[in-house]
Amino acid sequence: MFYSFCKVGQYMTYFKFELIHRSKKSRARVGRIHTPHGIIDTPNFVAVGTNGTVKALNNTMLHDIGLQLMFCNTYHMMLQPGTDIVRQAGGLHSFIQRKLPIITDSGGFQVFSLAYGSVADELKSRGTKKQGGCVLKITEEGVLFRSYRDGSKVLLTPESSIKAQKDLGADIIIPFDELPPYHIARDALKKSLDRTHRWEKRSLEAHLKNPQEQAMYAVVHGGIDPDLRKESCAILTELPFDGFAVGGSMGKTKDEMHTLLSLTLPLLPEDKPNHLLGIGDLPSIERSVPLGIDTFDSSYPTRAARHGILLTKQGPLNITKSEYATNFNSIEKGCLCPACHHFSLAYIHHLFKARELTCMSLATVHNLYFMVQLMEKYRKQIQEDLI
Amino acid sequence: MFYSFCKVGQYMTYFKFELIHRSKKSRARVGRIHTPHGIIDTPNFVAVGTNGTVKALNNTMLHDIGLQLMFCNTYHMMLQPGTDIVRQAGGLHSFIQRKLPIITDSGGFQVFSLAYGSVADELKSRGTKKQGGCVLKITEEGVLFRSYRDGSKVLLTPESSIKAQKDLGADIIIPFDELPPYHIARDALKKSLDRTHRWEKRSLEAHLKNPQEQAMYAVVHGGIDPDLRKESCAILTELPFDGFAVGGSMGKTKDEMHTLLSLTLPLLPEDKPNHLLGIGDLPSIERSVPLGIDTFDSSYPTRAARHGILLTKQGPLNITKSEYATNFNSIEKGCLCPACHHFSLAYIHHLFKARELTCMSLATVHNLYFMVQLMEKYRKQIQEDLI
Repeated sequence: MFYSFCKVGQYMTYFKFELIHRSKKSRARVGRIHTPHGIIDTPNFVAVGTNGTVKALNNTMLHDIGLQLMFCNTYHMMLQPGTDIVRQAGGLHSFIQRKLPIITDSGGFQVFSLAYGSVADELKSRGTKKQGGCVLKITEEGVLFRSYRDGSKVLLTPESSIKAQKDLGADIIIPFDELPPYHIARDALKKSLDRTHRWEKRSLEAHLKNPQEQAMYAVVHGGIDPDLRKESCAILTELPFDGFAVGGSMGKTKDEMHTLLSLTLPLLPEDKPNHLLGIGDLPSIERSVPLGIDTFDSSYPTRAARHGILLTKQGPLNITKSEYATNFNSIEKGCLCPACHHFSLAYIHHLFKARELTCMSLATVHNLYFMVQLMEKYRKQIQEDLI
Repeated sequence: MFYSFCKVGQYMTYFKFELIHRSKKSRARVGRIHTPHGIIDTPNFVAVGTNGTVKALNNTMLHDIGLQLMFCNTYHMMLQPGTDIVRQAGGLHSFIQRKLPIITDSGGFQVFSLAYGSVADELKSRGTKKQGGCVLKITEEGVLFRSYRDGSKVLLTPESSIKAQKDLGADIIIPFDELPPYHIARDALKKSLDRTHRWEKRSLEAHLKNPQEQAMYAVVHGGIDPDLRKESCAILTELPFDGFAVGGSMGKTKDEMHTLLSLTLPLLPEDKPNHLLGIGDLPSIERSVPLGIDTFDSSYPTRAARHGILLTKQGPLNITKSEYATNFNSIEKGCLCPACHHFSLAYIHHLFKARELTCMSLATVHNLYFMVQLMEKYRKQIQEDLI
């Protein structure tokens, strides 16, 4: 069992990573992340609850299906309701009534992706400035942007991001970083990376002044440049972070991502947990678990659910197809989720056709339970050295 | 205890109305309606689940809060998924997985309200033909209308409505009736009433050929004309219906409705349950319980919930108001609903502001639980002769 450092020589008791098994077949590993709000078995899937709820569910439902880690977005919580209010409520766990672990990001990703658009937007030339939010100025200090909610100017810096994340009080927090656009010259990428490292260091320093029983994961950047990725690992692993997230652009294809992760993961310390930011579609998880990724967050299963895509062991099915109108079986035989336990494909198909909100929660709870089960299966297979 | 007749001399064992207490102070009464899917304590509120679900909830949640009767709309179920499919699923209870009693209407109300608009639409001159559905022809046979879903022509007759309701298999069904517009000359109203009586009789005959453990409530019509209301009661109470619903236009104001109900209720048999169709706002319930109404259906509490109106003992509150942003109490102190048990006003306010679907289900489950509790309070007060 490895204990993470808070400061040199000072053992943390509230956060540790326990390595249970390392596969003989790959770099895949099974572990346990101990947090103030309980254990996260790894590898695991992290549900995205941007505004403090997974869309269409409530947090007691998440608890009941055993979803161990939930991702909330600091950017959104800053703008609504404001992190002050969450602090007054006693922190995010109390405000949203979640008893299990939470991770928050720095807000940087959202600010920059609103400015540049997502990588996918960029590749598809869908333009920028979604939702009307925009970056006004990037300086060494931080980023000045306009709130998409009320048009007010907001300055986000490493210190203000950490202040916000202290208000939120998640178990795992993320330093402030820059998300450079996918199409960027190497010089500009290098400059961005250097600044990100300075911002992450400032974030860590701000955090360590008041650890508040939170753990901080660094975010490895460097885009699709292998040398810069290596440099990022080298610099960040020198700092007393509690874990390491992999962020930034990872290329256009799953092959590119696989290559980058294969290069990056071995450069991260084995005794600390790692996280793959914003990627959690099924093929990516399948290819990344053998590389040693511990946790994945993604809105894929929940967003897919709201569009009628239900995950099953036989692959995703589109519940809106007419073939399900008279299928009175459950989504997946043997599935113990509340949707499968009570309702048929035909009924859920009907709810989608009738545009009833109820279908969203049934589909979402099924897909998340599927992810919980899938990750449990991966852990079992790793322990049996099958992965 | 009164037993309803199925045919003369043939006692029904699957449906009966049990009168528990008649108030000494008013015509209010406490009773129990026994159905194949359990008891409905009266007076009670009936939740509207148009498409086989209360919007934003699932049927296990309804069960858990003790909602004893749910109203599904035959018109909607005919067009989507089609009552054939529901029959194949084993009926509505099986299809939507509801273990407690269900009532369905005839489809007539929707067909005509799509043609004429609702009374409220009419009074506000909002015009007709909402959603693009329209009545093509009304004959003695029935109504030919165009489906708002696919533009196909559908003929709804007393016999086809009952056929559909046999497919659905609710505990309580409603004969096919005409909903005349509010602004109608007396002659036309009288003609409509006569036809409605013929249609209701045909519906009853169709039903009694195959009772299928269903009970049928007549629908008293006559609009705002006291003499026609009396005539309707006289004619319908001669027929072996199992209960009596009051339908049609009941005037522009609550006073008009009160006058009409005061006149109508004493003309209905005491040994059978009655129902007030489509009216269940709080002031109307408060004024109608003393008149002896047993059940009320209304989409008010659920629709209000989706607009952020939460019902409390101190009156409705608008959760979207900024005063709730930092109110960390539950919606109502002591309320045992899932929303109050877990979440604060501030969090639900936040979910509304962030436009999260989750707020809809929390608000809806609270409002319905409020109605369950309210009706229980009324029953208690009647038993103590306070109403």
